[in-house]
Amino acid sequence: MSKRHHIVIVGAGFGGLAVAKGLGKRDVDVTLIDRQNHHLFQPLLYQVATAGLSPADIAAPIRSIVRHFPNVRVMLDRVSGVDQDAKYVVLQSGHTVKYDYLVIATGARHSYFGHDEWAAFAPGLKTIDDATALRRKVLLSLERAEIATDPQQRKALLTYVVVGGGPTGVEMAGAIAELARCSVRRDFRSITPHCSRVILIEAGPRLLQSFPEDLSLKAKVSLEQLGVEVQLGTQVEAIQSDGVATKTGYIRAYTTVWAAGVQASGASRWLKITPDRTGRVPVGPDLRIAGDPAVFVIGDTACCLDEEGLPLPGVAPVAKQQGAYVARMILSGLESRPFELTAAKPFAYRNYGNLATIGRNRAVADFGKLKISGHLAWLMWCVIHIWFLTGHRNRITVGANWLWSYLTFTRSARLITGETTSEGVASFPHNIDPPCKTDSIIRMLS
Amino acid sequence: MSKRHHIVIVGAGFGGLAVAKGLGKRDVDVTLIDRQNHHLFQPLLYQVATAGLSPADIAAPIRSIVRHFPNVRVMLDRVSGVDQDAKYVVLQSGHTVKYDYLVIATGARHSYFGHDEWAAFAPGLKTIDDATALRRKVLLSLERAEIATDPQQRKALLTYVVVGGGPTGVEMAGAIAELARCSVRRDFRSITPHCSRVILIEAGPRLLQSFPEDLSLKAKVSLEQLGVEVQLGTQVEAIQSDGVATKTGYIRAYTTVWAAGVQASGASRWLKITPDRTGRVPVGPDLRIAGDPAVFVIGDTACCLDEEGLPLPGVAPVAKQQGAYVARMILSGLESRPFELTAAKPFAYRNYGNLATIGRNRAVADFGKLKISGHLAWLMWCVIHIWFLTGHRNRITVGANWLWSYLTFTRSARLITGETTSEGVASFPHNIDPPCKTDSIIRMLS
Repeated sequence: MSKRHHIVIVGAGFGGLAVAKGLGKRDVDVTLIDRQNHHLFQPLLYQVATAGLSPADIAAPIRSIVRHFPNVRVMLDRVSGVDQDAKYVVLQSGHTVKYDYLVIATGARHSYFGHDEWAAFAPGLKTIDDATALRRKVLLSLERAEIATDPQQRKALLTYVVVGGGPTGVEMAGAIAELARCSVRRDFRSITPHCSRVILIEAGPRLLQSFPEDLSLKAKVSLEQLGVEVQLGTQVEAIQSDGVATKTGYIRAYTTVWAAGVQASGASRWLKITPDRTGRVPVGPDLRIAGDPAVFVIGDTACCLDEEGLPLPGVAPVAKQQGAYVARMILSGLESRPFELTAAKPFAYRNYGNLATIGRNRAVADFGKLKISGHLAWLMWCVIHIWFLTGHRNRITVGANWLWSYLTFTRSARLITGETTSEGVASFPHNIDPPCKTDSIIRMLS
Repeated sequence: MSKRHHIVIVGAGFGGLAVAKGLGKRDVDVTLIDRQNHHLFQPLLYQVATAGLSPADIAAPIRSIVRHFPNVRVMLDRVSGVDQDAKYVVLQSGHTVKYDYLVIATGARHSYFGHDEWAAFAPGLKTIDDATALRRKVLLSLERAEIATDPQQRKALLTYVVVGGGPTGVEMAGAIAELARCSVRRDFRSITPHCSRVILIEAGPRLLQSFPEDLSLKAKVSLEQLGVEVQLGTQVEAIQSDGVATKTGYIRAYTTVWAAGVQASGASRWLKITPDRTGRVPVGPDLRIAGDPAVFVIGDTACCLDEEGLPLPGVAPVAKQQGAYVARMILSGLESRPFELTAAKPFAYRNYGNLATIGRNRAVADFGKLKISGHLAWLMWCVIHIWFLTGHRNRITVGANWLWSYLTFTRSARLITGETTSEGVASFPHNIDPPCKTDSIIRMLS
């Protein structure tokens, strides 16, 4: 019997895990490398950022997910390079891992369109740490506003700008509006719900550009009902610690969220391939890179064209279907050696539909001919997201959490973690209020 | 009608919250200041550190807890000083808050008995951030051990030292043993459960010195059944990044947990009072400091003597009873002015019992005449801890989590957060394995 093939998968997101599952318990050895120990259900990350869910509710240890596949090995490490001639991956720890087939599924980070200096003031949302950092920022802004005495400062503290009107931006804007309004109404004394202002800025002519126009409009109306100001056709010109500049003016805001652009991971550097404009690696219809049939690139890292010559979107279903396809390709290649010479059936993405939620009872869903919005779309959104979550425990926890939040109007994870006060003060302008010997607190109370 | 009195409470732990609840909806104004936005249920913090619970499960926003008391105001800030003559508190943000009565309930931090250099290598467990940092360290040690090729390095990575045999140390040692054993058995490929070693070091002659001797012995036996090595009468002489020195030798271990000593918060500096050996502020039988009837100190920050002249222990029931006592004192003082002249009934601590858990199905309970150990004590421990948790949601979540863990033998929050790989590598010795061109992974798999 010939030596078992070794497949190395880099990245345990939706794409990488789909490959691992497809190869689990088959006659190959698999090594799954990720820089995190957990798989993250990114579609719900904005709920961690807005204190609705705990990080552990939407993450599962990678080892647990592949527990039942004895042929899959998990390594916590970072890739620092690939030697395609000798067929091995070099890791940050110094290890090298040889492969027969390499699958790169390392996802994407946010991109600031060449303005990396904005990153410090407008964090994006890709990891658990991004989400808890943003949660800290939003919750601290409420705390600071509660004790602020300067009305201008207070207004800037309670102004939240979300840049980017895609699904993430729409979901974030809706969730921040609900968080600020709901907790302020119940738990704060000095500030009131109508003090807060949430602004969603989108450069294009409409929100949710991957959706049909009528659903974009419905999303806009729903957001406005939640109190979100939607500014379409507006480009951000500068982002600073205290606000955002657009051509229509300067918005003073201490909390800005970036949901506008993504940049694929650095896989193109490892492979010495010229990436496309957003850093993605061009792949053929069999998801392999040009010139090296042993390397597959999938998910947000790949630029894979559909039948009309347009790149497939960076969404979970594409990555999952590509992962399953690669696993099938590899297995079929093993049976009909030499794999390199077999003509492969090209990958075809099957789009089952698009969903975006806007807030309590509000969502839009596009299933081709069927377009839904409002309460029914929101219920479908809930059911589908629970269904696709990894692990029964997470499904139960998230479901119970949502039910609890729905019934009680509370958010369960309103935790400010990290060194709160000093860091919190540092991340906001110093001396929000001038030190005062007179006692403003007593005055406000009495 | 005379001006309403203003009571300032510093610290929203068990003590501070008890004062706020006692004064809620009464004819006084209350300001509750804490440097965190959440109240933490510290007795279960070790379960966050060992990946059994999520941070939000054992924490609740302080604002939510006092939501129904319109006369209680919450401020997120740090105290930087107290002016007892002019009766105001100075905060880090620059605010000052005047008080008529001041209650200090700022708790304690761990103390390294003058060896502060040990703190970097042997973190303690007092805040959510302590717990997630320790969780990261323990989970990373397993990940590093899985890919380590040097047997000595692997052994050191899988050796865990807990310093201090009080309830926290006993609970931590038991939980780490269960975590290492259970996840290793199911989720790892290269390392096996009997590779790991947990050592509990106690300077005194027995564990749980606040418990009766027979229960101390039972706790020791239970820990040993879990595979924990208990070293009694052993003093730690040095702690370094790679191990712990005692008079009997050097234990190579990359993970050391400090559960040996605590030091009260810096309240004595604010009050310019000479503290006792562990930093506590001496208080009279009415919990006021000498010379200033407007200032109360309670909980872990206070040194309050019992009838036999011994200091009360730093446990939650003491703080809660003291908080309730102070609230009653203040209210009765308002009715019979001048309060300063009324003779107060001295505080008397009522001890309802002591509990400590050791692991699955194992605990010890001391209710005076009634002493219990084993399964029944463990069930009581579970019920009592759920009962005393803050908020229905946390009770439900923790209860459901425990049931799930009990039935499935899994831990739900095995998340490594924070920058994993680079930080993880940095916190362990560099180059655990020498860079190798040969492929150790494939060899292990085949």
